[in-house]
Amino acid sequence: MSDKKVIINDVTLRDGMHALSHQYELEDMVQIAKALDEAGVDIIEVTHGDGLAGNAINYGFSKYEEEKYISAVADVLKRAKLDVLLLPGIGTIEDLERVIDLGVKVVRVATHCTEADISIQHIEYSKNRGMDVVGFLMMAHMIPPAELVKQAKIMEGAGADCVYVVDSAGAMLPQDVADRVKALKDNLSCQVGFHAHHNLSLGVANSLSAVQSGADRIDASLCGLGAGAGNAPLEVLIAVFDRVGIRTNCDLYKLMDAAEELVRPMMKRKGVEVVIDRDALSLGYAGVYSSFLLHAKRASKRFGVDTRDILLELGRRKMVGGQEDMIVDVAVELAKKRGKEVEVE
Amino acid sequence: MSDKKVIINDVTLRDGMHALSHQYELEDMVQIAKALDEAGVDIIEVTHGDGLAGNAINYGFSKYEEEKYISAVADVLKRAKLDVLLLPGIGTIEDLERVIDLGVKVVRVATHCTEADISIQHIEYSKNRGMDVVGFLMMAHMIPPAELVKQAKIMEGAGADCVYVVDSAGAMLPQDVADRVKALKDNLSCQVGFHAHHNLSLGVANSLSAVQSGADRIDASLCGLGAGAGNAPLEVLIAVFDRVGIRTNCDLYKLMDAAEELVRPMMKRKGVEVVIDRDALSLGYAGVYSSFLLHAKRASKRFGVDTRDILLELGRRKMVGGQEDMIVDVAVELAKKRGKEVEVE
Repeated sequence: MSDKKVIINDVTLRDGMHALSHQYELEDMVQIAKALDEAGVDIIEVTHGDGLAGNAINYGFSKYEEEKYISAVADVLKRAKLDVLLLPGIGTIEDLERVIDLGVKVVRVATHCTEADISIQHIEYSKNRGMDVVGFLMMAHMIPPAELVKQAKIMEGAGADCVYVVDSAGAMLPQDVADRVKALKDNLSCQVGFHAHHNLSLGVANSLSAVQSGADRIDASLCGLGAGAGNAPLEVLIAVFDRVGIRTNCDLYKLMDAAEELVRPMMKRKGVEVVIDRDALSLGYAGVYSSFLLHAKRASKRFGVDTRDILLELGRRKMVGGQEDMIVDVAVELAKKRGKEVEVE
Repeated sequence: MSDKKVIINDVTLRDGMHALSHQYELEDMVQIAKALDEAGVDIIEVTHGDGLAGNAINYGFSKYEEEKYISAVADVLKRAKLDVLLLPGIGTIEDLERVIDLGVKVVRVATHCTEADISIQHIEYSKNRGMDVVGFLMMAHMIPPAELVKQAKIMEGAGADCVYVVDSAGAMLPQDVADRVKALKDNLSCQVGFHAHHNLSLGVANSLSAVQSGADRIDASLCGLGAGAGNAPLEVLIAVFDRVGIRTNCDLYKLMDAAEELVRPMMKRKGVEVVIDRDALSLGYAGVYSSFLLHAKRASKRFGVDTRDILLELGRRKMVGGQEDMIVDVAVELAKKRGKEVEVE
């Protein structure tokens, strides 16, 4: 292992928003942010689960306005940098303008792994505003490493300081991560990051694989708090990193204490569990967007085909968002194949 | 990946006993056993968490007598083999004699990784009774691969059909597992198995590493139900195995359903959570027996030294059971090093 320190980007307060149905208490957020800062975490992300301006009817209203969350956290950080997530299409440059002066130092611009071009103006704008800028390539398991490199180059070309391999569906195995991170490291000059989901319980193993393949930044959250099966659990990740000699700025005991004394009690209080249940496992196994789940379940009932078979077939066809009709089509096809009589209204 | 099928040994009903404080309902056990059998699991273990005769005051009484549990499960198995765990020192050959005719087909004899010799007579006896016999080398992270081979050879010599690398503390990383499994495969003619614990959230990753290094048998439990941070979650493990083309006799969907419809509801009903909490993480990070925890916590209070520092030092010194005085000694030493005044009563 080299002497370089891996940069830890916490997502307890952003991906964790999903787990809390965006109902984070301000006080919880502030306490957790303080603890993360004191534990040496480098970057702390604060945004609605779906990024800036996600606080809306289609993504779920959060308990407080995003300015309130961001300002509250900015006020208590002594060392860590504050970052916001922006998904072009949900958030805009105007949304970014609105919050950037509240203390934001890092902007992460996220797109589907084949759509890096829609991030160009957001990356350029953020760069011009003097931010540290990250391109975030979601569902990165869906395309081969060489194609991912092409997309990453678009982000680097726009000025990104780092491009992330994002395993949004928790579908990657350690070798998938290694292949993608290595490809990016070999072909880009900027930093490379990795964001895990835990659907196959490989969040920590995959993050380890990422660092061993040269990744510079790693995302994680206390207790794994995040959408679905959650993210790589930060306190466990740092224990493993410490054990193999991967250096970070983090203090393991402080992270363990923050997980045990702040996050787990909050989860209990809010009735939140982060587990690999059947739905989470199905999504990770199939490698599809979580937004497909509800539609696949409906189609399953309607056509008598197992939800998992529908999801798997969607995964095989590499479907992305906005294709609900296709989900019905797939269910009908599968039902017919099995000799079922199908009536489509 | 070769054409061989990996043998899956379920421990939901035995290691899972720990998680339920040994209060398994007979009906739950029967339902879960049926589901595992129908899902194609090869071997199903039924014993007190600490093995045969563990149902006693020092290990915690179980809700029913072991004969009752074993008979009830034996009655419903159509395809899977029933196995019992025996720790010489807790259980005896007489205990084995008492249950073997209830339908037991596999006997697993467990010792600390340096004490294989105390398993010889139990292995020989079981072999003479026509059983499939497994040697189970616990805390296998504590000795280097070459030493583990020597111990495994003792078990093989006594007649074991398979020897397990057991990561009792959940302390191993994928490379540790690979090194040990490879060493055993290279030097033994019998089968090799791997039993994971999830303290570093690497249960599935380590089991994958074991199979990729040649392991023939793998332990796992539905929802990871087991002592402390639990075992490799069976339904997740099989999803990963299916994804990489590792063949087993298991039906993934049936396992997912059993986890979701039987085990998770039972856990909810019983108020059982299997999580990587601070204690579980501390034990995995330090690589020590869980029985040290309470003593280390007491010593921590008494001498003002962090419990984790005590556990880590015990791990460094490769302490094993029955050394409570040493735990106090370590705490005193650490306290003195930090300039604390220590009064030992």
